[in-house]
Amino acid sequence: MNAPGSLPPVPSAHDDDHLHEECAVFGIWNARNAAALTTLGLHALQHRGQEAAGIVSCDDNSEFYSHRGLGLVSDVFSDPRVMATLKGNRAIGHNRYATTGATLLRNVQPLFAEFAFGGLAVAHNGNLTNSETLRKELILRGCLFQSTMDTEVFVHLIATSLYATVEDRLIDALKRVTGAYSLVVLSGDALIGARDPMGVRPLVLGRLSGTDGDGDSWVLASETCGLDIIGAEFVRDIEPGELVIIDNDGVRSLRPFGQTKPHFCIFEYIYFARPDSVLEGLPVYAVRKQIGQELARESGVEADIVVPVPDSGVPSAMGYAEASGIPFELGIIRNHYVGRTFIEPTDQIRNLGVKMKHSTNRPALNGKRVILVDDSIVRGTTSRKIVDMVRAAGAKEVHMRISSPPTQHSCFYGIDTPERSQLLAAQHDLKKMAELIGVDSLAFISQDGLYRAMGYESRESCRDRYCDACFTGDYPIPLIDHDKEFGTGTA
Amino acid sequence: MNAPGSLPPVPSAHDDDHLHEECAVFGIWNARNAAALTTLGLHALQHRGQEAAGIVSCDDNSEFYSHRGLGLVSDVFSDPRVMATLKGNRAIGHNRYATTGATLLRNVQPLFAEFAFGGLAVAHNGNLTNSETLRKELILRGCLFQSTMDTEVFVHLIATSLYATVEDRLIDALKRVTGAYSLVVLSGDALIGARDPMGVRPLVLGRLSGTDGDGDSWVLASETCGLDIIGAEFVRDIEPGELVIIDNDGVRSLRPFGQTKPHFCIFEYIYFARPDSVLEGLPVYAVRKQIGQELARESGVEADIVVPVPDSGVPSAMGYAEASGIPFELGIIRNHYVGRTFIEPTDQIRNLGVKMKHSTNRPALNGKRVILVDDSIVRGTTSRKIVDMVRAAGAKEVHMRISSPPTQHSCFYGIDTPERSQLLAAQHDLKKMAELIGVDSLAFISQDGLYRAMGYESRESCRDRYCDACFTGDYPIPLIDHDKEFGTGTA
Amino acid sequence: MNAPGSLPPVPSAHDDDHLHEECAVFGIWNARNAAALTTLGLHALQHRGQEAAGIVSCDDNSEFYSHRGLGLVSDVFSDPRVMATLKGNRAIGHNRYATTGATLLRNVQPLFAEFAFGGLAVAHNGNLTNSETLRKELILRGCLFQSTMDTEVFVHLIATSLYATVEDRLIDALKRVTGAYSLVVLSGDALIGARDPMGVRPLVLGRLSGTDGDGDSWVLASETCGLDIIGAEFVRDIEPGELVIIDNDGVRSLRPFGQTKPHFCIFEYIYFARPDSVLEGLPVYAVRKQIGQELARESGVEADIVVPVPDSGVPSAMGYAEASGIPFELGIIRNHYVGRTFIEPTDQIRNLGVKMKHSTNRPALNGKRVILVDDSIVRGTTSRKIVDMVRAAGAKEVHMRISSPPTQHSCFYGIDTPERSQLLAAQHDLKKMAELIGVDSLAFISQDGLYRAMGYESRESCRDRYCDACFTGDYPIPLIDHDKEFGTGTA
Amino acid sequence: MNAPGSLPPVPSAHDDDHLHEECAVFGIWNARNAAALTTLGLHALQHRGQEAAGIVSCDDNSEFYSHRGLGLVSDVFSDPRVMATLKGNRAIGHNRYATTGATLLRNVQPLFAEFAFGGLAVAHNGNLTNSETLRKELILRGCLFQSTMDTEVFVHLIATSLYATVEDRLIDALKRVTGAYSLVVLSGDALIGARDPMGVRPLVLGRLSGTDGDGDSWVLASETCGLDIIGAEFVRDIEPGELVIIDNDGVRSLRPFGQTKPHFCIFEYIYFARPDSVLEGLPVYAVRKQIGQELARESGVEADIVVPVPDSGVPSAMGYAEASGIPFELGIIRNHYVGRTFIEPTDQIRNLGVKMKHSTNRPALNGKRVILVDDSIVRGTTSRKIVDMVRAAGAKEVHMRISSPPTQHSCFYGIDTPERSQLLAAQHDLKKMAELIGVDSLAFISQDGLYRAMGYESRESCRDRYCDACFTGDYPIPLIDHDKEFGTGTA
Repeated sequence: MNAPGSLPPVPSAHDDDHLHEECAVFGIWNARNAAALTTLGLHALQHRGQEAAGIVSCDDNSEFYSHRGLGLVSDVFSDPRVMATLKGNRAIGHNRYATTGATLLRNVQPLFAEFAFGGLAVAHNGNLTNSETLRKELILRGCLFQSTMDTEVFVHLIATSLYATVEDRLIDALKRVTGAYSLVVLSGDALIGARDPMGVRPLVLGRLSGTDGDGDSWVLASETCGLDIIGAEFVRDIEPGELVIIDNDGVRSLRPFGQTKPHFCIFEYIYFARPDSVLEGLPVYAVRKQIGQELARESGVEADIVVPVPDSGVPSAMGYAEASGIPFELGIIRNHYVGRTFIEPTDQIRNLGVKMKHSTNRPALNGKRVILVDDSIVRGTTSRKIVDMVRAAGAKEVHMRISSPPTQHSCFYGIDTPERSQLLAAQHDLKKMAELIGVDSLAFISQDGLYRAMGYESRESCRDRYCDACFTGDYPIPLIDHDKEFGTGTA
Repeated sequence: MNAPGSLPPVPSAHDDDHLHEECAVFGIWNARNAAALTTLGLHALQHRGQEAAGIVSCDDNSEFYSHRGLGLVSDVFSDPRVMATLKGNRAIGHNRYATTGATLLRNVQPLFAEFAFGGLAVAHNGNLTNSETLRKELILRGCLFQSTMDTEVFVHLIATSLYATVEDRLIDALKRVTGAYSLVVLSGDALIGARDPMGVRPLVLGRLSGTDGDGDSWVLASETCGLDIIGAEFVRDIEPGELVIIDNDGVRSLRPFGQTKPHFCIFEYIYFARPDSVLEGLPVYAVRKQIGQELARESGVEADIVVPVPDSGVPSAMGYAEASGIPFELGIIRNHYVGRTFIEPTDQIRNLGVKMKHSTNRPALNGKRVILVDDSIVRGTTSRKIVDMVRAAGAKEVHMRISSPPTQHSCFYGIDTPERSQLLAAQHDLKKMAELIGVDSLAFISQDGLYRAMGYESRESCRDRYCDACFTGDYPIPLIDHDKEFGTGTA
Repeated sequence: MNAPGSLPPVPSAHDDDHLHEECAVFGIWNARNAAALTTLGLHALQHRGQEAAGIVSCDDNSEFYSHRGLGLVSDVFSDPRVMATLKGNRAIGHNRYATTGATLLRNVQPLFAEFAFGGLAVAHNGNLTNSETLRKELILRGCLFQSTMDTEVFVHLIATSLYATVEDRLIDALKRVTGAYSLVVLSGDALIGARDPMGVRPLVLGRLSGTDGDGDSWVLASETCGLDIIGAEFVRDIEPGELVIIDNDGVRSLRPFGQTKPHFCIFEYIYFARPDSVLEGLPVYAVRKQIGQELARESGVEADIVVPVPDSGVPSAMGYAEASGIPFELGIIRNHYVGRTFIEPTDQIRNLGVKMKHSTNRPALNGKRVILVDDSIVRGTTSRKIVDMVRAAGAKEVHMRISSPPTQHSCFYGIDTPERSQLLAAQHDLKKMAELIGVDSLAFISQDGLYRAMGYESRESCRDRYCDACFTGDYPIPLIDHDKEFGTGTA
Repeated sequence: MNAPGSLPPVPSAHDDDHLHEECAVFGIWNARNAAALTTLGLHALQHRGQEAAGIVSCDDNSEFYSHRGLGLVSDVFSDPRVMATLKGNRAIGHNRYATTGATLLRNVQPLFAEFAFGGLAVAHNGNLTNSETLRKELILRGCLFQSTMDTEVFVHLIATSLYATVEDRLIDALKRVTGAYSLVVLSGDALIGARDPMGVRPLVLGRLSGTDGDGDSWVLASETCGLDIIGAEFVRDIEPGELVIIDNDGVRSLRPFGQTKPHFCIFEYIYFARPDSVLEGLPVYAVRKQIGQELARESGVEADIVVPVPDSGVPSAMGYAEASGIPFELGIIRNHYVGRTFIEPTDQIRNLGVKMKHSTNRPALNGKRVILVDDSIVRGTTSRKIVDMVRAAGAKEVHMRISSPPTQHSCFYGIDTPERSQLLAAQHDLKKMAELIGVDSLAFISQDGLYRAMGYESRESCRDRYCDACFTGDYPIPLIDHDKEFGTGTA
């Protein structure tokens, strides 16, 4: 059914044929202006989700306050009267990019509920692989679902847990779910952060120095850029399978899953994370440049200029240019003024398609042999349009270089990927892909090349350190819902 | 806490010191344009709640569709694109006047939920007297509440019932609640109506003749005016304690509570119901005129004109004029163009107060001895302002006659009453009240007079036929939540 | 063309087949809270126009402030921040009902413009009969029109006048226009009121006693109810052809047109004015009752009940009942909760038509011989629907009595009338009209009867005292634009 | 006064201490989907003005259609129903960045007016230097102004011209104004483009090949990127002082001002134009890179990395890096997700200031000697914040290099510049500026260096080819209004 009481869905902004991260989380403890600092943290994490944002704050009396809305952080929290309602010195926040569930207001996080033990707010980034299975069980037990989000499964599991304390109920709930998640939870007494046992999605801990005799503030954020914006110091990554409890006694760490084998998402380095973030000790910007360098070494080609597909292809194109000695040029301009819903009313107009977001720097491209550097090819539709534009601007040759291995498998751990049947690299060999995209040559970085760029000898040498299922089909976490529906081994 | 994701509350329109009905319900089965007919039914029932409206419809494939919003029916359902989404040949709808829970969008009915057995939508008019008690129990069992409405207690009781069928679960739920309610429920297979065992709130059954070979449609509505607007024929009142199940096999009746003693709300006749409705066999308009006649007989006074306080006082003033032979005049004009939020920016302006809604017909009042007829006195603030206005227009004497007995007790059965401490008649004797209101004389109809006007010999002769707790303090349904909080016998 | 920069038009609320007044004006001089008092005055005059409202205020430094919007006064001026911007101790305001020009925001009054001599704001009620002619002349001279309102013609005439002072320019402009108008004008130095030489549209002068050592405030308003709401005392009607100039020296009166023959609009008494207003010395409510009495005398019929078509038919129905001795009953209920845009999505629903605003009091009508009293018949469509409803409610006979003579001619003086071809009484004789409306008998008050009800012996005896062109076709003011287009004598 | 009927002003997006172009214009003749193509053209020109947008279209019957609104093109024209109203095969459009007049809806272009000869729509980019003088004259003649835009002066001059044809009236009007302007005008018969005699602001002519037997379309746009987006071929720049008339007979050219000395705005190359545009034969991107190279030659400094201040500083930083051999690094990340109104509710937060739009790439900057390249310094406030951020990220040294000469004078030709007293370079010498901004060294490109980068030998060698008054104070067009107010020679 369509949703009772729902707002109309916000038109999707992700028709640009990219993979998309679904969400960002942020939390802060013991800070004056906790909600305001949370808006800043969410703003810095806006690249991880632009469709909705929400904040729940809490004061010393365990009173909770909340505001959520569709749109950018800077729009949802633009009204000072709204900000004034978000009282208290602790808060959690969330940016949403809809993976599971259309973007209705009721699907906006954080979720808040009153429990027997008091209020609790939960926000999460990732995707559960057994949420449908759990949802059906919970409905059979009489639980009522108000949204289609995985997060609500968490909340019901906490609510129906037979344990007494928030901590025990939370651990009980985490033990029942499988999947990839980074969680922030706000109770009346504590701010809690958690990463799944594999640590697929990122979560970092920071500290903001207190002023005027206030103690220090503790901060949780999906990426370090969420700490930088408020001047918080990076303390450490939350570890895979770790539960961090922040309260007035400081920071405690629990490891309910014992020893686990981490599998951090490799695509965070390639595309999702902001270039100024540092993930698991590696600076994203430097990794991207090194991938570009490796790519130049692996699949060099004679050409006049190296041109990035903006904005994400820029650092690897810089690396490529550096390693190849071919000049780096801004041959494609990105238009940042695209509003939510640009209507293209006729076929004539629709055919102009991709030009709404990109335009070519004709004088720079005309007569040139061009190496285009992009981060990935999903369906190939955008790549085709970009190549056509570049040729129309007078390029003599177009060579495409991709800073990731071919994307051949869907992600079930929180990335919005199309089905395999729509993934170009899952359907065609390299030659056919080059033909479909219309380039003179096409190359992806090799799997080993990717890991070399990150400082390893090869993929084998860091096996099980990263999740690269989208390239390899090696899914480290069982796909429970998926296998129930389709049988095992079909992803 | 304030509400996660909530819209700002709509400013209350009920600062006019009246008692207010909280809600209207409507349902229709087997009708093309079911949702459109529901908007009409709700429109005719708009006087029972103006703050929000909602409809859930359902088609033959048990797919549900829904739209809810804050505002008048004619605003919430004004967009044809919205109407087009409300598919199916059956629907229920609801007008809300906020009693329990501020008017947030999430507090707007009907509520819809997916159960193990399929979808179910519920709308209700009335108030449960043990909802807090039940809510706490349900939260302890792990139920999550998303609203502050009594209706959600119903829905959780249905969800957690151990019975198998919708009917059995519904009956199970009804047996656990106490209070006053008229319910409409829409499942994939049936439209269900129910009244509480005392039948405090009204609910009627109607039939709309089919056209073009469609069968007849069945209709449920809070009042007969909801049938009239769509041309449906009145069939009968749903009986107290009755459960009516309407499906493709027709109409069935269940009586899960066995024999019960009805106590219909007397105030429906005095003020709440629309004058063109017929409740429990008695036409409201005629009852009001008879009350006016009785009032004239009981407490006649020499005067020049009888003036109603519009709009509700008109029929009783007409009856009073008829019985007394004193001319009926429209001495007070009501301004119907009051928008939602009229700001009165300074004290000078605020003192002009009540004149926003009423103005005096100065030429008609000047130099006259005036009998003002109104339906009730709650806090007395509006009465005082009206009297002052009438005197300022030149009235020589002002005598107030009230077509109900003194309102001395709060209602716990679905009417928005202030606490006893704010009820003028609970705090002062008649003489003091007259003084506070500023009239030359004041009289209420007697309790026996009220029942005489309705065709009985006295209150005694129809004891237990009506609920008149607001006048007498005789509460027919236990006040479970209230007694837990304040001890028994304190209402 | 459609309008540059325009808002979408507000759906018309006047599909109810009534004649409609176009506008109200209000002005106040020397009052703290001038803008707030103006909102109250406009609110009391809301019946004269509901589609848009505007206020221009001015302070002692001749700085002007303005706010205008589409909707009811209480909505347009509901924001205290808006009110705070309307500074100064003098203001004029306007309610609009669109006659000339669709209701776009740019067509909302008061108009404000900067002239060589300073700022000037103008608001007007009425209609010019040579505005098209003047507009064409002004465009030829190079004037640019931003709206389609007559008021803008005034403003351009003032701007292009060769006279030096505001007064002289205003008189110059007034001498060039023909038509019906009541004007309020606010300059940096004065508040000015004016009525056309025939005094077709009303305008009254009032005084509000000063408090705290402030001097008295002077008030101009379309009707006395605009004075009453703010507690201002009625001083006198502005006279036909009079120009009243209110400034710090008090009130002066100019008569630029010399002696003129007044022709006040008779329809103000019958329908437009609020019943509590007093126009040209006659109380509207009393006149309406007397018309009802006269109507009963002229065209009595045997029946059981007299039923008004609410709200406008109520006083005349009361008069009819009184004179005939037949009981007055509220057989038709008006629903005041009709929002701006109620969609009736299918033919089945559309056929339910008029029931959105009216419903029948079935128990009161069933089996009765009914006399329906209404104020006028325009196209007859609403009358037909009302009659059908009353019959469907069980009335045995329906007799319609109309408190105005047959409306056979269009108004060109500020009333929104359909063309003659659409006026039922212009196309058919009484018998045919009765048949088309579906009544057992039909009668209008006679022209002489109407004037008798107003205290004259006959129409002849007060000839040229009133404009009754809509009944008689005697147009007292030349129809210049109309005659240019259609030739003379065709209205 | 504040504005009658105005919407609240859109909060300024230009608090980032940059100079800003005020507007873009676009026009198209003989194109199916003329309005849709205009939205695309305006979208490509969005960098020239983001506060409002408007389109007026016209069909073969000389009927005009219009829509204007506040916001981005992609928002104002997102509704297909709006687009459907913009009929016809010719249109003009405008993006607004408010210079003269706050951004109220009534200040949004194109302006449309009905003249004696028919409708006419006008949009303009630039600034008149005698508009106040003309406005006063026109008001004295009785013209009424509805906006505060220069464009309205044009329109009144056309309206009051004594010439007969549109062309003659337009030329008459152009001869009376002084200043910088590029105009597009749409009459019932023709699309007209015009540049002021000095050609300060750009305007180009393009052609779009017809399909399906339609003839070719002619296009006017502020920059070539407005042609590229719709696939139109660049034909030529409109020449300074040229009037181009496009109608069904093709393209004609008039030169009402005879021979003139062009002075194209040099700042278009430095900052305003999009890098992919070609202005007066020179590609913007290449010019910017060459400026960067020249800057490196003129004021080299030992350092580890060259970092652009994004987005505008990127090409010159690339040129600088190339010429200096110092690596180019993206040390500052721009956040493109800044909504209209981000509230920073407390001082603590406000101090975080510039970080809303920029963040530092800490790993890339830490421990490095950094050369920051930016396009200009206006007040210096943003520069100071950027420098502080870069130091906070660990930079050992910060050297700032500016790709324009010091901005020491205000612009009166269409650029939004602060007064001289607020221009850092007008108040301080280089050493003091470096100290105030907090850099280890500061250098601007020299005036001769700038012209060398554009292919000339020196400034002297291309004297009078460009307007560089903001650097030199040599104003080629008289500042009539300004000199009247302040005396001559004070700008």
